[in-house]
Amino acid sequence: MDDEHVARAALVRLGEPGDTALGAAVRVHGPQEVLRVLQSDGPLPTEFRRRDPAGYRVRLGGPAAADDLATVARLGGRFVVPGDRHWPTQLDDLGDARPIGLWERGPRPARLAALESVAVVGSRASTDYGDYVTGELAVGLAEARWTVVSGGAYGIDGAAHRGALAGGGPTVAVLACGIDVAYPRGHDRLLARIAEVGTVVSELPPGCPPSRVRFVERNRVIAALTRGTVVVEAAVRSGALVTARRAQRLGRVVIGVPGPVTAPQSAGVHQLLRDEETVLVTGAAEVVECVGRIGVDLAPPPVGPARLWDRLDAEAMRVLEAVPPGRSASEPHIARAAGVGPGPVAAHLAALRELGLVEPESDAGAARSWRRASAPPLPPEDGEAVRASGALGRAGPAQVRARAAPT
Amino acid sequence: MDDEHVARAALVRLGEPGDTALGAAVRVHGPQEVLRVLQSDGPLPTEFRRRDPAGYRVRLGGPAAADDLATVARLGGRFVVPGDRHWPTQLDDLGDARPIGLWERGPRPARLAALESVAVVGSRASTDYGDYVTGELAVGLAEARWTVVSGGAYGIDGAAHRGALAGGGPTVAVLACGIDVAYPRGHDRLLARIAEVGTVVSELPPGCPPSRVRFVERNRVIAALTRGTVVVEAAVRSGALVTARRAQRLGRVVIGVPGPVTAPQSAGVHQLLRDEETVLVTGAAEVVECVGRIGVDLAPPPVGPARLWDRLDAEAMRVLEAVPPGRSASEPHIARAAGVGPGPVAAHLAALRELGLVEPESDAGAARSWRRASAPPLPPEDGEAVRASGALGRAGPAQVRARAAPT
Repeated sequence: MDDEHVARAALVRLGEPGDTALGAAVRVHGPQEVLRVLQSDGPLPTEFRRRDPAGYRVRLGGPAAADDLATVARLGGRFVVPGDRHWPTQLDDLGDARPIGLWERGPRPARLAALESVAVVGSRASTDYGDYVTGELAVGLAEARWTVVSGGAYGIDGAAHRGALAGGGPTVAVLACGIDVAYPRGHDRLLARIAEVGTVVSELPPGCPPSRVRFVERNRVIAALTRGTVVVEAAVRSGALVTARRAQRLGRVVIGVPGPVTAPQSAGVHQLLRDEETVLVTGAAEVVECVGRIGVDLAPPPVGPARLWDRLDAEAMRVLEAVPPGRSASEPHIARAAGVGPGPVAAHLAALRELGLVEPESDAGAARSWRRASAPPLPPEDGEAVRASGALGRAGPAQVRARAAPT
Repeated sequence: MDDEHVARAALVRLGEPGDTALGAAVRVHGPQEVLRVLQSDGPLPTEFRRRDPAGYRVRLGGPAAADDLATVARLGGRFVVPGDRHWPTQLDDLGDARPIGLWERGPRPARLAALESVAVVGSRASTDYGDYVTGELAVGLAEARWTVVSGGAYGIDGAAHRGALAGGGPTVAVLACGIDVAYPRGHDRLLARIAEVGTVVSELPPGCPPSRVRFVERNRVIAALTRGTVVVEAAVRSGALVTARRAQRLGRVVIGVPGPVTAPQSAGVHQLLRDEETVLVTGAAEVVECVGRIGVDLAPPPVGPARLWDRLDAEAMRVLEAVPPGRSASEPHIARAAGVGPGPVAAHLAALRELGLVEPESDAGAARSWRRASAPPLPPEDGEAVRASGALGRAGPAQVRARAAPT
């Protein structure tokens, strides 16, 4: 470890994530010089503006940087800093809020894992619907070789990581505590599994507990690391919305999965989706379309079942519908009902017969009659049309009685 | 009834709704002249292009216009045509596809009812969710004095009309059959009720049954009559989407209510909502915001519950979180954990005590200690932060065991 790594490892013990004053000072004076000033009694550089030096100095004498670096090395992890080969350069978009350094565990460097990655975040108090949809989404992303990045929390985060693992894809957990801290405790096995096959990262040194402020700042790392942020379920004041807004400000794609408008867990997502810059998706293919290569990773539009009558033009459809089901009708009758002349009606009926939609009556001697073929039926959406036979009362609007409708 | 009304009433017996050739001919030559030509054997005017005259003439000799007009008069209804005081002029946006005339029942002319109106349409095969959400929406629109326009069908249409009636508001049913035809039959009572207190309208003369083509063309009237179209549930190939696209082409607002992405009944709505020009709404207030007066009819943004700690700045929050729950900590310990100097820490702790969030230990003689006040708790979303106390195994990523985390 060179001096810069050691100095940065010491600085993350003195400051808190997202400290732009510290970040600006490091940018201007370098980490060794900033550390030297903080370790002295002297005044801070102007980049710290009116920050109280005691806020940093009160932490001097805590765990040593060398110990933290040794701990992470024992875990098979790394401490990467800006300029390193494995530094995720997309984090530079955060400006002076860029992490001072990043602690990592797992076989794959976060930089590589996050090259084609999507954040999937949401409420900790998720519904069964949210968990299910998140799982399906993450499996689909994994199968498309996209990395799923999330926060390791209960609810949507957990479903996202599990789905990615189930799909055999890479996943990155960005924690608001040390990468050796199992938080939340019920996710100790999940986080251990991610550290085995994926990547666990944090700006906080080993052993640090999470805090509310650290959760909020952690979200900026998730947003910056990924091409886009998908919010599956989020209440109106969820932390997932903070991640989404951070992503928006960073020029990343913001994506929402809708849910029932009756569920408070979807209210925050719907609020997001009312914003013009947010994209609604219903599955992994549509997410990939948003974050993938323009014009290449296109999601197929949803299609309904193909129907025989899709091939009929409007006039043929009118002729078909003028043939009553259950009984036969003469060609002149059909012509009047359809509003189609006798010549075209005969041609249409012949074509409809070819399609198996109508059949002629056997008594071909007189004017020919036709009946609807028993199968296939008319489409369900509007198919009841031809069976219409009720009428509102004629004597006055209040009186209602059924009668046979004229054709 | 003047000659123009009689001629138009006769023409709607000869043509089908949405016939732009007929519409163009009527615009250029007037209804009486077009009727005279159709009743003769002569060639049709050029506006008919290559239409087969027999398609119209095959219907000559059907019910007489005078009889239709008498029937509607008996029902307490009207036949309104362009230029009438009660003609809904917004239908003129349809150009040559404008209805030849409109048959109406009910106390309130469609023109007046539709001045401030919204179409609420959707799948006939709706879910309980769709029915519920539609009902709530329609009640809310009715209470805001907006007219709910729909197609009288089963499913979403029916829920929309019923909700409007329940909210004591006006509602208009636009039918694809005669206004005296109870279609669908199970809605005979609903349609009779709408005819009593709302408005039932159709371009089709009395007694006419619906058809697939008539349903499609009916949708253009719903779209043109209203300021915007709300789709609640719609499968990928639903007729409600036809209405929405017609509304879009007419410059009306297109609005969608999302649902679970797992429900095929919402797939068409989500497809619509992926279009930038469609607005997602979750309730009646947001619909009114879309179609109402700009800057006046604003929906209140959804808000979560106000929390005591919303008023805390980030530094105060860090101090609060550095006070452990369940046991006390000394001020120097709190200062280190929070990364805040001794002076500000004392000030923050005093302020947090005023808010009832922390309380001092009784032994004020030594360096003062503090504990978290028993109530109120930290926010549920990130509140578990301070109870973090697990750690991933240190020996290697595969080994996981719990330990007390350092603070």
